[in-house]
Amino acid sequence: MNLYENEIVEWRRRFHRVPEEGWTEFETTAAVIERLESLGFAVKTGTDVINPEAVMGRNPTLVKEAEDRARRAGVPETVLRRMAGFTGCAGEIDTGRPGKTVGFRFELDCVVTGESDSPDHPPVREGFASIRPGLMHACGHDGHAAVGLGLAHWIADHLDELQGRFVLLFQPAEEGVRGAGAMAASGIADGLDYLFAAHAGCEFGPGEVGVLTHGFLATTKLDVYYEGIPAHAGSDPEKGRSALAAACQAVTSVLGIPRHSEGASRIAVGRLVAGEGRNVVPAHAFFQMEVRGATQAVNDFMTAEAVRIIEGMATVYGIRCRIEKAGEAAVFECDEECVLILEKAARSMPAVSSVRRFTTERGSEDCSMLARRVRSKGGKAGYFCFGCRHCGHHRPDFDIQDTVSLPEAFGIFVRIVQLTSSRAV
Amino acid sequence: MNLYENEIVEWRRRFHRVPEEGWTEFETTAAVIERLESLGFAVKTGTDVINPEAVMGRNPTLVKEAEDRARRAGVPETVLRRMAGFTGCAGEIDTGRPGKTVGFRFELDCVVTGESDSPDHPPVREGFASIRPGLMHACGHDGHAAVGLGLAHWIADHLDELQGRFVLLFQPAEEGVRGAGAMAASGIADGLDYLFAAHAGCEFGPGEVGVLTHGFLATTKLDVYYEGIPAHAGSDPEKGRSALAAACQAVTSVLGIPRHSEGASRIAVGRLVAGEGRNVVPAHAFFQMEVRGATQAVNDFMTAEAVRIIEGMATVYGIRCRIEKAGEAAVFECDEECVLILEKAARSMPAVSSVRRFTTERGSEDCSMLARRVRSKGGKAGYFCFGCRHCGHHRPDFDIQDTVSLPEAFGIFVRIVQLTSSRAV
Amino acid sequence: MNLYENEIVEWRRRFHRVPEEGWTEFETTAAVIERLESLGFAVKTGTDVINPEAVMGRNPTLVKEAEDRARRAGVPETVLRRMAGFTGCAGEIDTGRPGKTVGFRFELDCVVTGESDSPDHPPVREGFASIRPGLMHACGHDGHAAVGLGLAHWIADHLDELQGRFVLLFQPAEEGVRGAGAMAASGIADGLDYLFAAHAGCEFGPGEVGVLTHGFLATTKLDVYYEGIPAHAGSDPEKGRSALAAACQAVTSVLGIPRHSEGASRIAVGRLVAGEGRNVVPAHAFFQMEVRGATQAVNDFMTAEAVRIIEGMATVYGIRCRIEKAGEAAVFECDEECVLILEKAARSMPAVSSVRRFTTERGSEDCSMLARRVRSKGGKAGYFCFGCRHCGHHRPDFDIQDTVSLPEAFGIFVRIVQLTSSRAV
Amino acid sequence: MNLYENEIVEWRRRFHRVPEEGWTEFETTAAVIERLESLGFAVKTGTDVINPEAVMGRNPTLVKEAEDRARRAGVPETVLRRMAGFTGCAGEIDTGRPGKTVGFRFELDCVVTGESDSPDHPPVREGFASIRPGLMHACGHDGHAAVGLGLAHWIADHLDELQGRFVLLFQPAEEGVRGAGAMAASGIADGLDYLFAAHAGCEFGPGEVGVLTHGFLATTKLDVYYEGIPAHAGSDPEKGRSALAAACQAVTSVLGIPRHSEGASRIAVGRLVAGEGRNVVPAHAFFQMEVRGATQAVNDFMTAEAVRIIEGMATVYGIRCRIEKAGEAAVFECDEECVLILEKAARSMPAVSSVRRFTTERGSEDCSMLARRVRSKGGKAGYFCFGCRHCGHHRPDFDIQDTVSLPEAFGIFVRIVQLTSSRAV
Repeated sequence: MNLYENEIVEWRRRFHRVPEEGWTEFETTAAVIERLESLGFAVKTGTDVINPEAVMGRNPTLVKEAEDRARRAGVPETVLRRMAGFTGCAGEIDTGRPGKTVGFRFELDCVVTGESDSPDHPPVREGFASIRPGLMHACGHDGHAAVGLGLAHWIADHLDELQGRFVLLFQPAEEGVRGAGAMAASGIADGLDYLFAAHAGCEFGPGEVGVLTHGFLATTKLDVYYEGIPAHAGSDPEKGRSALAAACQAVTSVLGIPRHSEGASRIAVGRLVAGEGRNVVPAHAFFQMEVRGATQAVNDFMTAEAVRIIEGMATVYGIRCRIEKAGEAAVFECDEECVLILEKAARSMPAVSSVRRFTTERGSEDCSMLARRVRSKGGKAGYFCFGCRHCGHHRPDFDIQDTVSLPEAFGIFVRIVQLTSSRAV
Repeated sequence: MNLYENEIVEWRRRFHRVPEEGWTEFETTAAVIERLESLGFAVKTGTDVINPEAVMGRNPTLVKEAEDRARRAGVPETVLRRMAGFTGCAGEIDTGRPGKTVGFRFELDCVVTGESDSPDHPPVREGFASIRPGLMHACGHDGHAAVGLGLAHWIADHLDELQGRFVLLFQPAEEGVRGAGAMAASGIADGLDYLFAAHAGCEFGPGEVGVLTHGFLATTKLDVYYEGIPAHAGSDPEKGRSALAAACQAVTSVLGIPRHSEGASRIAVGRLVAGEGRNVVPAHAFFQMEVRGATQAVNDFMTAEAVRIIEGMATVYGIRCRIEKAGEAAVFECDEECVLILEKAARSMPAVSSVRRFTTERGSEDCSMLARRVRSKGGKAGYFCFGCRHCGHHRPDFDIQDTVSLPEAFGIFVRIVQLTSSRAV
Repeated sequence: MNLYENEIVEWRRRFHRVPEEGWTEFETTAAVIERLESLGFAVKTGTDVINPEAVMGRNPTLVKEAEDRARRAGVPETVLRRMAGFTGCAGEIDTGRPGKTVGFRFELDCVVTGESDSPDHPPVREGFASIRPGLMHACGHDGHAAVGLGLAHWIADHLDELQGRFVLLFQPAEEGVRGAGAMAASGIADGLDYLFAAHAGCEFGPGEVGVLTHGFLATTKLDVYYEGIPAHAGSDPEKGRSALAAACQAVTSVLGIPRHSEGASRIAVGRLVAGEGRNVVPAHAFFQMEVRGATQAVNDFMTAEAVRIIEGMATVYGIRCRIEKAGEAAVFECDEECVLILEKAARSMPAVSSVRRFTTERGSEDCSMLARRVRSKGGKAGYFCFGCRHCGHHRPDFDIQDTVSLPEAFGIFVRIVQLTSSRAV
Repeated sequence: MNLYENEIVEWRRRFHRVPEEGWTEFETTAAVIERLESLGFAVKTGTDVINPEAVMGRNPTLVKEAEDRARRAGVPETVLRRMAGFTGCAGEIDTGRPGKTVGFRFELDCVVTGESDSPDHPPVREGFASIRPGLMHACGHDGHAAVGLGLAHWIADHLDELQGRFVLLFQPAEEGVRGAGAMAASGIADGLDYLFAAHAGCEFGPGEVGVLTHGFLATTKLDVYYEGIPAHAGSDPEKGRSALAAACQAVTSVLGIPRHSEGASRIAVGRLVAGEGRNVVPAHAFFQMEVRGATQAVNDFMTAEAVRIIEGMATVYGIRCRIEKAGEAAVFECDEECVLILEKAARSMPAVSSVRRFTTERGSEDCSMLARRVRSKGGKAGYFCFGCRHCGHHRPDFDIQDTVSLPEAFGIFVRIVQLTSSRAV
């Protein structure tokens, strides 16, 4: 491994050890800011890269605690002040020569799952397992961010050979598809000619690269709060209004939203908590749900149906209702030009044995929100997966074989830079 | 049996043979009008005794057919014109002497059930079984109306011995508690000092008389019509709006209306018809329901809950909704003075072996609507049951042993007249 | 138009005028039998072509009435006896020379919908509109059967130029995908080397031919009968067991069967009838439903889920349950060899302006059951649509422009025969 | 106040300060055991007074923690060993003279609610407010137990004047009606001639005593656990089995259990927790519910319906189900002899201004389980309420004015002893 590759593995392991969940990545963001600035990048953070009005699924209590934790961990007050409570940052560097503006997206957040303590689990074996119980980089974002810093280093080192401008987006809260929407809404990606992003693993094994043509499901995440009227269930049942009963019927009706003839859809209610005690008419209910669609229209249909059902059911039970959008992603539409660049970049890597185009309807990816924004402004977007041997994302024993997969990903990113921005001579 | 008693049995059997369901009692009403007028009563009918705006559960198609049938059966056009489509009538007679105004309520309508053809069934054995398939006087209203005509005859014959005024109400559509509300709303019972009514059978056996103190469940009957949007369930499921799915959820939620701490309640959805074909998203649904309550407040609570649920569920499913009140009865509140009169009247009958006060929460009786109106204007109300051996109301083999039970009921009514209206000398 | 074409239009209009719904096509079957036999075909009918144990969605009362009607319309008793209550027939003819056994499927049944009486509607204008209220050939099966008879005539006339054997299947009850399963189960299509079938219209306009590669949704139709316990809803609510309430919850749960990740699915409850009267706990409920799937596995999943839910809900409500399979179709898998034959046949027709391969997930076609059987025995299957200008299948004003579209279909079928069975010389 | 009364107030305040919830009353039980033994009572505890097989609603984790806490608070290991994990005890004392065996029931447990910190709240003002956050004697059981100890003292002091035998039952876990059933099942109350119990407050004000004739609702508390199969809701929805969806439909159906014609019923689902995450098919659901009935038959009907629905719904959703009975109470049937004793006892108290018989359908009381057992063995039972000015049971600011109400209760208990057990001379 070369200098950059060694550095990337080091960063990955550092990030892996201290995972931070979505919207709380203060330590990770601070580290990224410091590094980017040391490399000569101009860095924006806080409300310059996150539009607060478009923020979804951010828990203020968790954020506050994480900010304090970061402070205790030594993150300078000046940096925290720049962030203003909003994690994520963007590093920009200009060659001073006319050319394309090329953007890259890397994620910062971990998954809310505990890490395996098996001695066979590489992070345990190598001593960089998560020090935070219940939190783990089980989706590879630690590797993505590390590759981002390696790429920044390479660009800084090779600036003379390049033209145009580079924007490296370090996005918070990808889990739950929460962060990219607010980053897109900040305008930080406006003006990009190209946006590229990547993910470790997915359905691809070691040495395999998948280039997305179009895919992922559009999705909308909703948090629903019902508020009824409490009463003693034995002595005054008629005085109560059960938020629990309303939630049950809302869930049932929501699960019955019709299929759509224009493509796959999904509907899930994954969590429901209601009621205060056995013999009290329940005054509160809360549930978390999501819809998905193979097209934006299908997802919009599902969302509109769900909202109408949920609000209507509040009327049925005579209670109050509040719905919050907790996350959102679009279908990821890739441009043929970017697909070709990615194919060329991947095929030029000796370690890559297979490059194939793919589409998928098995999950969602919120970089789609940035891609949609970039494309709406005239730019183009591309996305690829770099394979590794893994047991499944979000599992306690997830691993990415960093010394193999990350150099591969880094190599592809470098070639993207070369293919789009090599200095015209 | 005396003259009146023989006549009552004859009338009863005549009515039994030609049953007419609620709001279609044109032949029965015409017979009553003719008889009352021949006895010297002033008779009101049509909109004089029925307030069309308060009419519930009247099927215009059935009414039209019944009017034609009555025409074919020889009911004079002049009489039909007086009725103006609304069955029921009231006969009034004045002694010319100051005194109480005493009212009596008798019902005209039959039950929608086929009559037994067993040779043991008295109407079959005696040759007066229903000639109309699917219709039968299976609740004793034939006997009630017959007693009403017998009482009219007796009053006319004994007018010289009496004082005050008499109003005999022949009410349509008691089944489904549909008719009394509209009769009350016409004002025909306003000004009564007393209102009395009776029912054959109930929980009382031969020779037993029950005097109601307070009871029956208040009730509201609702017809619900949902209208959705049809679509091919295979090719365009998302274009439809299922009235059937909405009805199912409305029914389920309605059945879950909470108990009330202040007294018994009931909720029933007795019939549901929805949809056009297996593979079409159903555009129509219809269901019939009822609520009941041991108090007016409980019934009002149940009704308000049901209406909110049904209308709300239309919103949930994005469809249209229409609710029609198809029947209504109140709790029957009896006045102690009337209870005492009834006890005295019943106890003076040699054939009556037992007289006891009773209350009941097992059914509803729409004479309660007339009683409520009378009492709201300062009058008083009483109600009794005269027993007979029977197998259960509304059954195909229901019978009232007319030669025994009707003379008993007649005797009690005559004594009521004597106790309230004997000429002061 | 040539001799065959004229004859086809005549047959189509004759069939159109006297439509018969699924499993009642006694007159149509009798006409087909007579014609095929007059052309020299050996004809099988009744249980030789229908396996009674595999029959779905057949109403014995309707069948009885239709048989009597056919008898009155002059269908000979001997023919009715051969049918033994089961409509449909198969005509076989052998060239006596070795070669392929080629089968064709044509349908006989109409749709349960009333026909338009607009003077612009071609059947009205030309005087061959349905004489049976509520029944209409609104799906083109009249034309299909007519083409089948035209093809039989042509084969009989050209037998000397051909080799191998021909089997013409005239299938009952395609609507509701009820008949093909029982025809396949009879074994009548076993041994076919090729099976071809066609449909008028679909998504194709005049002059267009679509050749199916793979498609239609697999589907299962279920009729559900619930039996509860009646009781008076006011006086004994706890003694009843509501079949209506159970049906509502079963419907709701069935509509919530999860999406399947392997392909499109559908679920519909199109009709529900429950209950006896407003104030009676409902003792009976009946509903008609269907599931569909883009693969057999998806459809099997949907069916298994529905059955488990429906039976389980009977337990929930303490009632009895009966489920009847009322129809079934598979995904239609076409063989590349047949696709090529069909493309060649269609492209050789001067009147055909466009030939394209297609797949569809918008409906179901029960010829898939015959195709699956044929293929399971080593044969191959093909399917095409011949276009016409139409307003939508199953609509009262559906028409197929018989003088244009049927000659085209006939021509393609003749060419199929020539391509598969021309005498080797 | 006399010696006993002073002591009672002291005990009450001591108990109030250190509240223990149901099945964790180790410190309170230990204090009662020590006191009773010091007074000469023979004391049984542990499995001598609690039948482990009949225990309901006992959380082993909470019990373990409470035992440790008691140990740390100085409860001797020998006493804890006698309890064997089961709180509650019974003190018996024999006069040595033939006579009645008279039992009394007092409760030990507190309510799971935080205590008011208002300076106006008497326990705050007087300095004996709960030291345990989230726990409070908000139902008066502290006072009941204190009165029990005062009564024990009085009996011990006056043993010479008495005949027969006395059994003082100190029952755990009355809240949630959990403890009395297991105490009854231990046989500890078998052989009692009389059982008396009392409650502070209820619907009675200062100076008022209510003597129960018959009442409280029979009730059954159920905890329901559903276990489904998890799956990723986006990529494999069909592989999951949603315990959450099943719970929603079970709750909805349970809320629709019909009314019962023989008396009031109640049904409540007060708490529901289900699911693991937004995008995971929920594998677990848990809900707490209760039914009640004005008669045992009504409650049994409600319970049987609920169990059938809950188990059936597990079948509907193809998941596993476990139902635990978490509490149970009967209708409290009092014997006329005991009613007369209580009336006489209460009326002899100068401080009591009003004594009236009452019945109630507004709540449940698990002493009914002991009363049922005693009566099944030939004994008799009585129950009374001694009034106080209070704001409502289970509220953070509940108080019983101990210096007024407890002496009154004590006085009545002493008179019961005198009326049933004064030495025959």
